[in-house]
Amino acid sequence: MIIVLKTNATPEQINHICEKVKELGLTPQVSRGVERTIIGVIGEEDTIRVKPLEAFPGVENVVPILRPYKLASKDFKPEPTVFEMGNGVKVGGKKIVVMAGPCSVESRDMLLRIAKTVKKAGADFLRGGAFKPRTSPYSFQGLGEEGLKYLREVADEVGLLVVTEVMDPRNVDLVAQYSDMLQIGARNMQNFDLLKECGMCKKPVLLKRGLSATIKELILSAEYILSKGNFKVILGERGIRTFETATRNTIDINAIPVVKDETHLPILLDPSHGTGKWDYVAPIAKAAVAAGADALMIEVHDNPEDAKSDGEQSLKPERFALLMKELRAVAHAVGRDI
Amino acid sequence: MIIVLKTNATPEQINHICEKVKELGLTPQVSRGVERTIIGVIGEEDTIRVKPLEAFPGVENVVPILRPYKLASKDFKPEPTVFEMGNGVKVGGKKIVVMAGPCSVESRDMLLRIAKTVKKAGADFLRGGAFKPRTSPYSFQGLGEEGLKYLREVADEVGLLVVTEVMDPRNVDLVAQYSDMLQIGARNMQNFDLLKECGMCKKPVLLKRGLSATIKELILSAEYILSKGNFKVILGERGIRTFETATRNTIDINAIPVVKDETHLPILLDPSHGTGKWDYVAPIAKAAVAAGADALMIEVHDNPEDAKSDGEQSLKPERFALLMKELRAVAHAVGRDI
Amino acid sequence: MIIVLKTNATPEQINHICEKVKELGLTPQVSRGVERTIIGVIGEEDTIRVKPLEAFPGVENVVPILRPYKLASKDFKPEPTVFEMGNGVKVGGKKIVVMAGPCSVESRDMLLRIAKTVKKAGADFLRGGAFKPRTSPYSFQGLGEEGLKYLREVADEVGLLVVTEVMDPRNVDLVAQYSDMLQIGARNMQNFDLLKECGMCKKPVLLKRGLSATIKELILSAEYILSKGNFKVILGERGIRTFETATRNTIDINAIPVVKDETHLPILLDPSHGTGKWDYVAPIAKAAVAAGADALMIEVHDNPEDAKSDGEQSLKPERFALLMKELRAVAHAVGRDI
Amino acid sequence: MIIVLKTNATPEQINHICEKVKELGLTPQVSRGVERTIIGVIGEEDTIRVKPLEAFPGVENVVPILRPYKLASKDFKPEPTVFEMGNGVKVGGKKIVVMAGPCSVESRDMLLRIAKTVKKAGADFLRGGAFKPRTSPYSFQGLGEEGLKYLREVADEVGLLVVTEVMDPRNVDLVAQYSDMLQIGARNMQNFDLLKECGMCKKPVLLKRGLSATIKELILSAEYILSKGNFKVILGERGIRTFETATRNTIDINAIPVVKDETHLPILLDPSHGTGKWDYVAPIAKAAVAAGADALMIEVHDNPEDAKSDGEQSLKPERFALLMKELRAVAHAVGRDI
Repeated sequence: MIIVLKTNATPEQINHICEKVKELGLTPQVSRGVERTIIGVIGEEDTIRVKPLEAFPGVENVVPILRPYKLASKDFKPEPTVFEMGNGVKVGGKKIVVMAGPCSVESRDMLLRIAKTVKKAGADFLRGGAFKPRTSPYSFQGLGEEGLKYLREVADEVGLLVVTEVMDPRNVDLVAQYSDMLQIGARNMQNFDLLKECGMCKKPVLLKRGLSATIKELILSAEYILSKGNFKVILGERGIRTFETATRNTIDINAIPVVKDETHLPILLDPSHGTGKWDYVAPIAKAAVAAGADALMIEVHDNPEDAKSDGEQSLKPERFALLMKELRAVAHAVGRDI
Repeated sequence: MIIVLKTNATPEQINHICEKVKELGLTPQVSRGVERTIIGVIGEEDTIRVKPLEAFPGVENVVPILRPYKLASKDFKPEPTVFEMGNGVKVGGKKIVVMAGPCSVESRDMLLRIAKTVKKAGADFLRGGAFKPRTSPYSFQGLGEEGLKYLREVADEVGLLVVTEVMDPRNVDLVAQYSDMLQIGARNMQNFDLLKECGMCKKPVLLKRGLSATIKELILSAEYILSKGNFKVILGERGIRTFETATRNTIDINAIPVVKDETHLPILLDPSHGTGKWDYVAPIAKAAVAAGADALMIEVHDNPEDAKSDGEQSLKPERFALLMKELRAVAHAVGRDI
Repeated sequence: MIIVLKTNATPEQINHICEKVKELGLTPQVSRGVERTIIGVIGEEDTIRVKPLEAFPGVENVVPILRPYKLASKDFKPEPTVFEMGNGVKVGGKKIVVMAGPCSVESRDMLLRIAKTVKKAGADFLRGGAFKPRTSPYSFQGLGEEGLKYLREVADEVGLLVVTEVMDPRNVDLVAQYSDMLQIGARNMQNFDLLKECGMCKKPVLLKRGLSATIKELILSAEYILSKGNFKVILGERGIRTFETATRNTIDINAIPVVKDETHLPILLDPSHGTGKWDYVAPIAKAAVAAGADALMIEVHDNPEDAKSDGEQSLKPERFALLMKELRAVAHAVGRDI
Repeated sequence: MIIVLKTNATPEQINHICEKVKELGLTPQVSRGVERTIIGVIGEEDTIRVKPLEAFPGVENVVPILRPYKLASKDFKPEPTVFEMGNGVKVGGKKIVVMAGPCSVESRDMLLRIAKTVKKAGADFLRGGAFKPRTSPYSFQGLGEEGLKYLREVADEVGLLVVTEVMDPRNVDLVAQYSDMLQIGARNMQNFDLLKECGMCKKPVLLKRGLSATIKELILSAEYILSKGNFKVILGERGIRTFETATRNTIDINAIPVVKDETHLPILLDPSHGTGKWDYVAPIAKAAVAAGADALMIEVHDNPEDAKSDGEQSLKPERFALLMKELRAVAHAVGRDI
């Protein structure tokens, strides 16, 4: 940690800060420049983070040097995390994992029809929301436990894994009972009680980036889960909120190399939410594979006109099957499978 | 609702859309322009919101006309909402309400010392976090129920009301037991299960705007609370996330007139979180009063150097007392009291 | 254009608006809904754009229906624009065009060394700044005309085309004299006098998106050039400004399908400025090709440590040559060449 | 400047960096922490800014310590800048300066009518655009020199000063001939050739913040003007671009205390562009005065319905006169006049 002092900081103020640093068992190193004096702090940076150093007289600003996350960082674990799911599917390996299905579970029938087509096209997971986070209280909120049951039954019948969202810490056990992977949605990325509950659960977790969360904050939220003992975490980029209105969100494709540079965790990209338009899903899915994504989440609906949510960004089954073929070519071009 | 068609939309596509609109009990009005055809939809707009119209062939985009919120809107209740708290304090009235205190409750002693000074300076509420949402799992997470007890005891001793944050839907009853107003923090603005629990509770709610939430989304989150029967809601602007890094957040001062234009709910501004620097708190607090804010939330700490959180943005008690005098002058200039 | 009225708009206000619409030779269509009345305007939308309709009493807001650009839109010219450069290079065709070279022209020697390597690796254009837009007046501002001369000489010697930035409308002729394509940088995307001068020049123009420009505004700036008679325009995505700080800018990869959907113009992506870190350039360049970009601009320097600008985001020649091979595989996977 | 090294930086890499630092006449100070080594650089920081240190092997990132601007900073000139205009008006003094008038100069008559009313209400400057930066090439582009003449004649007749925008470096002398203060608009904040021309001109300059410019970049653009010898600069906050769509832009009210903290230059706020709606202008203008703004720029039109631009955000003269009275009360409350 570097403490930058004001130009007019007095020797008393500098001494005062050094004393505080020493009280914490750390070593201050004062370095006087031509225009500024700075104090380097040697030792466990976390100790001093609890102190609001910027409140000290004479301090202009404070620059942390170390990454604030530990367990998620490549310093802690240099090799990429790969974890196996029940039926031979590996997350984080050479083969890119595909999660597909409707935005919401609407009925057992529609789910079964769609599940069959995505399985046939090569998907690994069935996605579908039973608990839906909706901006308006008047929008469809999901089928709840009934939806979870349909997901489990249909996935078992067809031979897919289940990933579905959990929103309420009280429901973590319930959702875990019916699914293979828990999804924490963008709006709950900093719902810390939910993160802790998912950390204590043994199920793998897909943690989606918040609409205005930095990549660093996304990793810190993953750190909540890891620090509770659950290391099976996959990070999800699904678009951030910017001034651009031509698409629903702005996909931050840069997040793929950044996450791979900073952490050992696998990364998923969701082109459906990231664009909000079904005809942009294919080019962005290909971009994700080319950039190194480990997984994709894609909305598929066989009757988008009647979808209870997100119909405008869902692919029809035949378009999804075609996309899977196109993705295969791109995956091979970058040394991956799908 | 206006449905804008593509230039090459066919008569069959137009018919198909009109049929769907009629199925919902609504009336389509086709209007053929020089370059485009559009379809106006007459009737209850909510009915059609469940249909993803943009997924229909021939549709370019869909423009909603009505506001998506009802109970929170001025159309529903034109006169401003004013509600009385226990001890004669009115939220939303001529007198601007001030909530002050430390970021976190750290001990009973510090809380009592600070409470006495903010009471003397004219504050109405004692603020202080017992449950703290922290970006990192390694930061101080608050004293929990012990902190709530201190808040209640100290506030009662000094003669203040208590406002404090609740993060977990499981804790709503617990927090309600010790406090006069529940705070939903920025990170939980779209924690819909928490919103519903607070809506079912009878306590007034301070709902803070999320870092990247539009004002419309803030009002929709309030609508969750109102739709459960709790109309005692105050909205809180505390800065949004932008590209600017000179301040912790960017205060959206425009939110004050927008909220007053769109809703009947009172609005609070938090200059401490909105700027992140104690020496910017005074000018921004004055700006808020001048712009028409109904309440202010200000962090006060008598030893910011040792604060467990947010020391750099806390005012010392004497500076807070001075600010209250300055705010009084501004309040009188715009026909308010404080 | 749709005019949405306030709930309490009076018949007089509605009449008044309809009269104004008729005065402009257009036809108003009043449509009364359950809660709102709206007025559709039939005719040339541009006529009415000069009127600030939102200032009329009774008007809540105004929704334009047509795209504000004409010449750049696919409605005007459905087939993609392809234009030929001097030496057989086609912009917008099946073969993806690559522009590579140093950020700034620093000397004739360095330029020649780098030009030889990028030519050998397969680049089509030599890029390099002679006039540099720098945030600080104390940063290196470029070699000016001397730099232009070096670019022309070196490109001719090696067999490349020249693309270089023009910042000042007074320099358009000068820059055009030495280069094959004029670049308008992000900071000048709305320098309308510069756009007009480039429109009157016959040289092809690379127009880069401003840091906070919407895609619609980018296309409108292109429209300035097209409306002066110059149709050889390529749009450039080089990252937008968001809250994310892990990368220099946030590449908006969505811009590729959006531009292809809205316009007939080719689109370039600049992964060097878009990420700001040389080790993120390769994954993002591959993503751009997979998503359908028609051109890439990549910074190459053989001694990044001594680069006068942007060394941290420049590839070394051997890394660039390797990247070209990797890009070829991805291009083939999506039916393109490079 | 602080150079933070990677955890695996080798002694050779560290030596290499230290050698480069010494070559520039500076002193490196190596400081080995528990997890990281950092190198402090003592001496003129500007010398080393030209080196792209992040391109050096072993470097993780580089943290500048000094402010990048000099002449504009309070370190250079601690007391606030106050400059006198022709007719006794002082910019930056106790009295807040008000610039008012139509968005565009449309005719001599309308300008005279409006000028009389704003003079009577207490404005100091007549504002009005003769050269208009318009997003679309099909929008009204201003009357050019004819508009400048009207501005001068009308201002002289009524007793006001003239502030008007210059967009093209070729027109600086022309605009200077007719006006008392040159305005550089938001879109041209980083039009560096224009900044330099305005710096060489002797007229005071109003420099408006770009839509996505940080405050630091705004000050660096001012530094371009100051470094050419023109110290009569006033900075203008007019709203930044964020995700919020309820207002045209998001006023960054925080910019007022930040600019006062960082520089000696006066600061203006433009509530008309900053909100985009005439009924939000009054609360935001009051907020600006309360927060410490030195000047306001407000659009006034006596027939907003027929304004050629920005009618929806213009105050009518009687509303403006009322606002001036309200602002006077707020100004007195914070120890200023208007």
